[in-house]
Amino acid sequence: MRDPFGARLQERVRALGPLCMGIDPSTLLLESWDRPDSVEGLEFAALAALEAALDVAAAIKPQVAFFERFGSQGYRVLERVLSDARDADILTIADAKRGDVAPTNVGYADAWLSDRSPLAVDAVTVSPYLGVGALSPFFALAQEAGRGVFVLAATSNEEGRAVQSARTRDDEKVEDLVLRSVSEMNGRDDGLGSIGAVLGATRDRPEFHLPSLGGPFLVPGVGAQGATAEHVARMFDRCPQGTVLANVSRSILQAGPDRAGLRDAAQRWRDDLARALA
Amino acid sequence: MRDPFGARLQERVRALGPLCMGIDPSTLLLESWDRPDSVEGLEFAALAALEAALDVAAAIKPQVAFFERFGSQGYRVLERVLSDARDADILTIADAKRGDVAPTNVGYADAWLSDRSPLAVDAVTVSPYLGVGALSPFFALAQEAGRGVFVLAATSNEEGRAVQSARTRDDEKVEDLVLRSVSEMNGRDDGLGSIGAVLGATRDRPEFHLPSLGGPFLVPGVGAQGATAEHVARMFDRCPQGTVLANVSRSILQAGPDRAGLRDAAQRWRDDLARALA
Repeated sequence: MRDPFGARLQERVRALGPLCMGIDPSTLLLESWDRPDSVEGLEFAALAALEAALDVAAAIKPQVAFFERFGSQGYRVLERVLSDARDADILTIADAKRGDVAPTNVGYADAWLSDRSPLAVDAVTVSPYLGVGALSPFFALAQEAGRGVFVLAATSNEEGRAVQSARTRDDEKVEDLVLRSVSEMNGRDDGLGSIGAVLGATRDRPEFHLPSLGGPFLVPGVGAQGATAEHVARMFDRCPQGTVLANVSRSILQAGPDRAGLRDAAQRWRDDLARALA
Repeated sequence: MRDPFGARLQERVRALGPLCMGIDPSTLLLESWDRPDSVEGLEFAALAALEAALDVAAAIKPQVAFFERFGSQGYRVLERVLSDARDADILTIADAKRGDVAPTNVGYADAWLSDRSPLAVDAVTVSPYLGVGALSPFFALAQEAGRGVFVLAATSNEEGRAVQSARTRDDEKVEDLVLRSVSEMNGRDDGLGSIGAVLGATRDRPEFHLPSLGGPFLVPGVGAQGATAEHVARMFDRCPQGTVLANVSRSILQAGPDRAGLRDAAQRWRDDLARALA
């Protein structure tokens, strides 16, 4: 039986630093790498990104959309990437942003968090538009399997603000409702819980007191989207050590396809983030 | 070049009635049908449901979660179901509830709406937690390809209420913001637009004036979840004819795996809905 995700992530971040390497093999990336926009191009790019992340990043975060583009063949590539990552002992986070009514979430939880699934990852991102309560099948299976869940609170993009900053009947912002719900489920102050939140570094600090989340933060928006390592450090000031995982995708991937270039870029970002968050 | 989705859907609903047949091959369904919880069981159940829908339902709505459970092999089954549905000339709606930042939505739109994708459907459901604006790649590709998009406004489940009824800075409920945004994009009053909204029949009528959406409604919550054909008729009173598509899943599927039973149940629901919405 594996240890809980929260503990495994904290151990990795302490050992390797807070970098999560985003694997976003988009059409634009394949073009800029001069690779075909095909299953073969996808596989090349995803495996090159994984290789650059090994022993540098605490985790990889494949963006599922860019695999789903190729249907079942794209998913076979994703299964290969996840299997190689497991063999190389690097944590995997599927950026899937799944979310539906509870009986349907049983299916999605199975897809991403069940030991029997070829798509099983250490953690998956989920979207709370249908309510945090509807996500309970993810939380239950994560707990059982020693895996994790990151619930979207405030995302890195400007268009997300209207919904995420809307106020509930209790005059609480939606993003704060999500953070509070996560913290109640974790119920601890050491950050070792396995339910995390996604909070964009490009956004204002929420009203919720971040150090009391009880679990990890997954932080997009760093690099190409505008936030620096210092922005991340300021926003997550006083959070328990090892609970902040900053995702960088495009700013690293643009250094490819040259393998040394990719690896250098990943190491530079890791060092920057580790220094700022120390 | 195919006709726009809005026009194709309206024509189908007028010809066959307003039933959308949900294809939800969950673990529970496979158990109740005494089939193995495997790729083979999945394929049997999905194809049996498709068969029952032919010439009865205006569209089928496969629930993607239950295919994703089996990874690439499950997606191969979904590709088979979609290909058979295309051959049989029944409309297909992928219930995927995808939604991310705009550059990532380019990938998801490609997956579900591009002519080159093995997963291409007539329409896909999307989730606006990251903002309606971030969904623009779906709207653009749908327009170009004669396909459609259904944006979640208010879902059928109770847990969705806190987020969907939260109020934006302009004191508008999130669900009304979604409906208004969709109506502005359609910009017409005949309901023939190709951007639709998901609105659960189990929810209160929103403040937004439903007949002015300009596109179709996809309506979950009918049958097992509690709403009747009469609830649907009352909620969508005065909407243009052919713009309301009511989804029924469990209440039909529980009549299986017997093919005659499935078909009878589908026809009964179609007749009920057609009468109530006439």
